[in-house]
Amino acid sequence: MSERLRARDLGLAPGIFRPGALNALTDVAGVRVGHVTLAEGEATRTGVTAILPHGGNPYADRLPAGLSVINGYGKLAGATQVAELGEIETPIVLTNTLAVGRAVEALVDWTLARNPEAVSVNALVGETNDGRLNDIRARGVTAAHVLQALDGAAEGPVAEGCVGAGTGTVAFGFKGGIGTSSRILPPALGGWTLGALVQANYGGVLAMDGVPVGRELGRWYLKEHTDRGDADGSVMVVLATDAPLSDRNLSRLAARAMAGLARTGAAFSDGSGDYAIAFSTHPGVRRTAERRAHQAIVADWPNDRMSPLFVAAAEAVEEAVLNALTMATTTIGRDGRTGRRAKVEAIDLDALRAVLARHGRGG
Amino acid sequence: MSERLRARDLGLAPGIFRPGALNALTDVAGVRVGHVTLAEGEATRTGVTAILPHGGNPYADRLPAGLSVINGYGKLAGATQVAELGEIETPIVLTNTLAVGRAVEALVDWTLARNPEAVSVNALVGETNDGRLNDIRARGVTAAHVLQALDGAAEGPVAEGCVGAGTGTVAFGFKGGIGTSSRILPPALGGWTLGALVQANYGGVLAMDGVPVGRELGRWYLKEHTDRGDADGSVMVVLATDAPLSDRNLSRLAARAMAGLARTGAAFSDGSGDYAIAFSTHPGVRRTAERRAHQAIVADWPNDRMSPLFVAAAEAVEEAVLNALTMATTTIGRDGRTGRRAKVEAIDLDALRAVLARHGRGG
Amino acid sequence: MSERLRARDLGLAPGIFRPGALNALTDVAGVRVGHVTLAEGEATRTGVTAILPHGGNPYADRLPAGLSVINGYGKLAGATQVAELGEIETPIVLTNTLAVGRAVEALVDWTLARNPEAVSVNALVGETNDGRLNDIRARGVTAAHVLQALDGAAEGPVAEGCVGAGTGTVAFGFKGGIGTSSRILPPALGGWTLGALVQANYGGVLAMDGVPVGRELGRWYLKEHTDRGDADGSVMVVLATDAPLSDRNLSRLAARAMAGLARTGAAFSDGSGDYAIAFSTHPGVRRTAERRAHQAIVADWPNDRMSPLFVAAAEAVEEAVLNALTMATTTIGRDGRTGRRAKVEAIDLDALRAVLARHGRGG
Amino acid sequence: MSERLRARDLGLAPGIFRPGALNALTDVAGVRVGHVTLAEGEATRTGVTAILPHGGNPYADRLPAGLSVINGYGKLAGATQVAELGEIETPIVLTNTLAVGRAVEALVDWTLARNPEAVSVNALVGETNDGRLNDIRARGVTAAHVLQALDGAAEGPVAEGCVGAGTGTVAFGFKGGIGTSSRILPPALGGWTLGALVQANYGGVLAMDGVPVGRELGRWYLKEHTDRGDADGSVMVVLATDAPLSDRNLSRLAARAMAGLARTGAAFSDGSGDYAIAFSTHPGVRRTAERRAHQAIVADWPNDRMSPLFVAAAEAVEEAVLNALTMATTTIGRDGRTGRRAKVEAIDLDALRAVLARHGRGG
Repeated sequence: MSERLRARDLGLAPGIFRPGALNALTDVAGVRVGHVTLAEGEATRTGVTAILPHGGNPYADRLPAGLSVINGYGKLAGATQVAELGEIETPIVLTNTLAVGRAVEALVDWTLARNPEAVSVNALVGETNDGRLNDIRARGVTAAHVLQALDGAAEGPVAEGCVGAGTGTVAFGFKGGIGTSSRILPPALGGWTLGALVQANYGGVLAMDGVPVGRELGRWYLKEHTDRGDADGSVMVVLATDAPLSDRNLSRLAARAMAGLARTGAAFSDGSGDYAIAFSTHPGVRRTAERRAHQAIVADWPNDRMSPLFVAAAEAVEEAVLNALTMATTTIGRDGRTGRRAKVEAIDLDALRAVLARHGRGG
Repeated sequence: MSERLRARDLGLAPGIFRPGALNALTDVAGVRVGHVTLAEGEATRTGVTAILPHGGNPYADRLPAGLSVINGYGKLAGATQVAELGEIETPIVLTNTLAVGRAVEALVDWTLARNPEAVSVNALVGETNDGRLNDIRARGVTAAHVLQALDGAAEGPVAEGCVGAGTGTVAFGFKGGIGTSSRILPPALGGWTLGALVQANYGGVLAMDGVPVGRELGRWYLKEHTDRGDADGSVMVVLATDAPLSDRNLSRLAARAMAGLARTGAAFSDGSGDYAIAFSTHPGVRRTAERRAHQAIVADWPNDRMSPLFVAAAEAVEEAVLNALTMATTTIGRDGRTGRRAKVEAIDLDALRAVLARHGRGG
Repeated sequence: MSERLRARDLGLAPGIFRPGALNALTDVAGVRVGHVTLAEGEATRTGVTAILPHGGNPYADRLPAGLSVINGYGKLAGATQVAELGEIETPIVLTNTLAVGRAVEALVDWTLARNPEAVSVNALVGETNDGRLNDIRARGVTAAHVLQALDGAAEGPVAEGCVGAGTGTVAFGFKGGIGTSSRILPPALGGWTLGALVQANYGGVLAMDGVPVGRELGRWYLKEHTDRGDADGSVMVVLATDAPLSDRNLSRLAARAMAGLARTGAAFSDGSGDYAIAFSTHPGVRRTAERRAHQAIVADWPNDRMSPLFVAAAEAVEEAVLNALTMATTTIGRDGRTGRRAKVEAIDLDALRAVLARHGRGG
Repeated sequence: MSERLRARDLGLAPGIFRPGALNALTDVAGVRVGHVTLAEGEATRTGVTAILPHGGNPYADRLPAGLSVINGYGKLAGATQVAELGEIETPIVLTNTLAVGRAVEALVDWTLARNPEAVSVNALVGETNDGRLNDIRARGVTAAHVLQALDGAAEGPVAEGCVGAGTGTVAFGFKGGIGTSSRILPPALGGWTLGALVQANYGGVLAMDGVPVGRELGRWYLKEHTDRGDADGSVMVVLATDAPLSDRNLSRLAARAMAGLARTGAAFSDGSGDYAIAFSTHPGVRRTAERRAHQAIVADWPNDRMSPLFVAAAEAVEEAVLNALTMATTTIGRDGRTGRRAKVEAIDLDALRAVLARHGRGG
C-alpha cells in the first residue's frame, strides 16, 4: 500500500474556508492533544485520546461548553452537568465503550491531585466501540493509560489514523481512526479559528467531498439488505474555538457537527452513539474562580454572527473524517464478540484517486 | 428557460433505495396534500400547503408523531404538545412566517367544525419566510386560504416548485419551493414506505447529490464574506411512513431530516428555522378514541431495526430539496423589507446538466 | 361572601424572603401588566393579560429569556425560538386556548407597526383553557382585545382574581384567576427583585402554605376515583427579575416555578399545560441592536450564586397562586363543552381562616 | 435519642392514595434492592445501593424507562442512552459522587459475566455527594462493594436511613439517607402499584406533609443569608411501576418526582444534582430479544389515564424523603473537604412530634 496522506493532499478540500496552519484542533491556541495507542499482540487494538482545553487547570479555570447528542446510543460520561452548567471542568477523554468507567476514575484522580479541595468532579469521557478489531471484553485500557494520554498531551501537529482512541475503529467498512481539521474565518466574519477532532467509528454510504466513493468502491451500509449493525459503532466529535461564545451558542455549534458527518454519508444508525462537544478558549468567557463567585463581565459573540462559525464547524468535521480515513492503515485484530481474527483494510488511495478523477475532482 | 424537470429526470438520484410510484409524500397510503398558491400582482408571492395525514378526522383518530428542532429560529405552532403527547391531532399547515396566527385560527375552525365537543386544539403550523419575493408585511394569506388548502388536499401526485407555501421561497440563492420524494425499503428491511415533503427556503453552499453545483455556478452563501443573512429563511420538513413507529422513534426519524438537508449544503444558519415533523399512518399505532381511553395493544417496530428508515429519511429529504429547486421557476416579486421589485432566478437546467456532466454525473 | 383579600392578609406568607412593595410582578422596575376582562352575558368569561417587559420596544431591545415546559399539553406560541435564541422580542400575552391564533396575529400587528423593517416576529402567547366557565368555542377574544391589553399595560399594582386571562379560570375546583407576588433578596444574596404572575387554571389537592385546605374543605382531584380531567386546564407562569442572568440561568429559574406549583398541591395532570417563562430586565444583559451586531460585553450572575433566586422563584409562584384563589370571586358562566350554565365558587375566606387556625396558621 | 420510626408511624401520611404492603419500592413485584453500608473508622461514611428491576437478566430482558433531569449538576452515568432508546439494560446503582467510575466498571463486569456476547453496556449509575460526613476523596467504595450490593439485592422490606448510598448523606441540615415508599391506585384508576426510592442529600426549607418543620426547629437553607452551598448535595429518585407505560410516559412520570421533592421544601439549588429514573416492570412492555428483533405488539397505558400515576409518584417521593429523615440516625464522620471531624444530627422525633401537634397533625 502506498504512503498515507491527508485528504487535502489528495485534492479533497471540502468547504469554502481555509484551514489553519496545522489543519488541526490544535490550531486553536492552547489546545493540547495526547494519544496512547494500544496495539499489542493480536487482540488489543484500542487506546486513549485526551484533549486538554488549555495548559492550565481546567477545574479552576473552566470553559463554557455545549453538547449535542445526535444519537444517544453511547456512554458519554458528564453529559448532564455540561448541559446544566454550560461548562467543562476537566479535560475530554476519548476511549473505547467498555473503558469509560476507568477513564472516569482516571480523570477524577487527575483532578483531585491538582485540586486539594475538590470533592466533586464532572469527568467528561466519550467513547466509540472498537470491538470489531479489538478484544474489547478483555478491557485492555487502564486508568494508567488515561493518565499517560493526559500527561503526554501537547500543542502542535496531531497524529491521525490508527492512534489513540482511533486505534481499532472502523468507518464505512474501511479502517477508521482519529482525524482532525480546522478553519480560519476571514476577518470580516470575525477572524476566529475553529478546530475539530473526530474519533470515526461509524458507517453509511461513504461520500468524500460529495464524491460517492463508497458506491464506486463497492462498499456501503445496507448493500446486502440486512440491517445487522454494520453501520453502528459511533463517532465522537470535539470542537474548539477561540470565539467568545456563550454555552448556548456552543451547543448550537456542536449541533452543526452533524452536518459534517452527514456529508460523509453517515447513516446515523440506531446503534451509533454520535455526539459533539464544543468549547471556547476565549479568555473573555473563561470561568475563573473570580467570575464564578461574583457578578462578572463576559464577552459575547452574538447570535446574528454565528452562521459563519456554523459553516466552519461542518466543514472542519467533514475534513476531519476524511483525514481519519486517508491516514488510517490496514489493521488486523480480533473481533471482540466472536473472538475470531479480523482484518479491516484502509481505503486504497490509488483507487480513491481514480474515483476522484472520474468525478472531476482531485489533483 | 427550458422545461422544468424533477431531479431524477436529470440523473440526480441520491441514495441507495428506490422511490415509490409517485416519488412523493403521497406514496404513503392515505396521505393528502393541498396547495393554495397566491401570486397576485407583483407583491404577493406566497401561499399555503396543507398535509392531511389520513382521510378521516385526525382529532378523533390521532397519529403518533415526533418532532426535531434543528434550529429553532421559527414560529412553529404546536411544538410543545407534539413533544409531550407524542401525537398530532390536526393536519399540518405550512405557510409564511407572518401568517402563522391566521393559519392557527383556520385549523382551530376546521377542527371545531368537525368535532362538536372539542374545546382544545393543538394546531400544527410551520412556516418559512418568503419576504425576499413576497410583500410579507401585507399579510396576503387569510384563514380562508388555509381552509381552501385543507379542502383541496388530495392523494396522488404533488405539485412542486412555486406552489403553495413554496410560492415565494428562495433556496441557495435560486428560486426554491415545495419538493417531495419517497423511498420504499426492500422487504428484508421491512418493506415500509417513507415520504418527505419540504418547504425549501434556506441557503448554504449548494450540492446536488454531492456535486458542488453552487460553487460551479458561482453562487454560494458567504461568497462575499459578509454574514448578512442570505442563508436565512428556514426549511420545514414533513415525513410520513407506514411503519408502526413509536413517537420516540418518529422523533429520531425526524432528526435524520437534517442529514438530507446537510447533503444539499445547508448552512443551518442562525436565522433559519429548520424543523422536521414525522408521523406514522400505521393502523396499529393510530390513537383512536378507544386506545386513548383504555389500556391498549399497539404495534411497534423496534429500535434495532430503525436504521434503514433513518437512511431512507435522509435520502428522501435530499431528493425533495433537489426537486424543489429543479421544479421551481424564475419569479419576480417584491422584497417585503425594502418594498422594491425583486427577482430570483430558477436554477438553469442546461447549466446544471453541464456541471453534472463535468462531475461524471447525469444521463 | 366577605371581601376578598390577598393571601398575605390572611396570614399566608410562604417562604423565607420578603415581598417587594407591591408584592407583584411589577416590583421589577419597568415591567408593565395590562388586563382586558371579557365577562359579557352569561357565556363569555375570558380575557387577555399582557406583560410588557419594559417600556420601550422589545423587538429592538430584546431581553434574555428562558422557558420551562413542565407539562407540554398546551399551545404556547413562540416556544422554540425562545429556546434557540435565548431571548424574547415581543410582549408576553396570556389568553384562552382557542384564542392563541388571534393573539399571535395581534402581537405581529403590534410589532410590525412599531418596526417598519420587521419581516419576522416571534409572538409569545400562552394560554389556559377556561372552557368550564366560558363558551370557549364562541371565540369571544379578538385581536382588538389583545391590542387593548397591550395598550393598557401599566406599572404599579396588578389586579388579581377574575381579571384578564384569569376571568374564567378554575383552580383546585375553586374559582381561579390571575395572581402575582414578588420577592426581594437580602443584599448579601445579591439584593435582586424577582416577580411572578400566574394564570391559575389547574388542579390537584390544594395546599396553602402547607395547610391541606383542599382536603379540609372536602374538595380535591381524584376524590371520586375517576380520572376524568378535572385537574386539567393548565397554568402559565411569568417570572421577571432584575438580576443579570444568562438565558441558561433564566431557563433554570423558570424550571423552579414548578416547585411553587407543587407546593400548592398541583397534580401536574396529563391535560394541564404547565409552562414558565422567565426574563431579565437588567440593562447589562439587554440585547440591543448594537449588542446583536457586534462582539459585546455582557453582565453575568454566576451559576454558583443562583440558588437564592431559585428559592425566591418557588416562593413567589406559590404566593401568586394563593393570591389568585383568595382574590377570585364566585363566577357563573357557561360550560364550553356542554353549553350548560356553570357555577364555580370562590374559596370561602371564613372557612379558610378556620382551617388555617386549626393548623396553627393565620391569625 | 428515641427509636427511629417511619414517617407514617409519626402520623405523616402525605397524599390521597394508600401505600402498598411494604410501603416500599419493592411493592412493585420483582424489584430487588441491595445495600452495602461502609461505615468504618471515623472517615468512611458511604456505600452503595443497587436496584434490580427484575430477577432475571436486564441486559436480555430490557425495560422501558424514562429519565428526568431536574437539575443536572450530577454525574449520572448512562443518561443519554436511556433517553435515546427509552430503556434500561442494567440494574441501577447509587453511590457517592467520586465512586461513579468504579460503579460503572462493576456494572460492566456484572453484565459481561452474564452475557458472553455483550460488547456494549450502558451502566446506569447515580450519585450524591456525601462529602460532609465521608472522606470522599479517600475513595472508600470499590467495584467489589458494588458487586456485593448487586448480589445481595432482594425483594421484601427495604432498609432505610443510614444504609447503602445513604450512609453519609445529609438532608435539610439533618442526617439524610435512603427512604422508600409506595402507592396503590384504586381499581377504577388502574389498580397499579408505584414505588419510589430516594437517596436524600439535598437541602432547602424542610416541610413535612406541609408542616414547616425546618423553620420550627430553627434550621433552614439561607437562614444566615449566605449562599454558600449548604443546600447542595443532590438527590436521586428511582421510580418503579407495574403499569404498562411507554418510555415517554415513564419520562413524564419521572418528571413528577420533582413535585414530591418540592413539597419537602427542596431548594433545587445550583449545586444539587436532582434526577429521577422511572421504569416499568409490566411484561407487556418488557423488551425481550424477540421484541427487539421483530415487529412487536406491546401494551400501552394511554396519556389520558396517566394523571393518577403522576399524583402517586409525587406522593411516594415525598413520603420516601420523610422516611429517609425519620429513619436516619445521628452520624459522626469526617468532612471530605476540610478533613475535620463532623457530626450531623438526626431529626429529633420528639421535637418533631411536638411541631406536628402544634400544626394539627400527628397521632
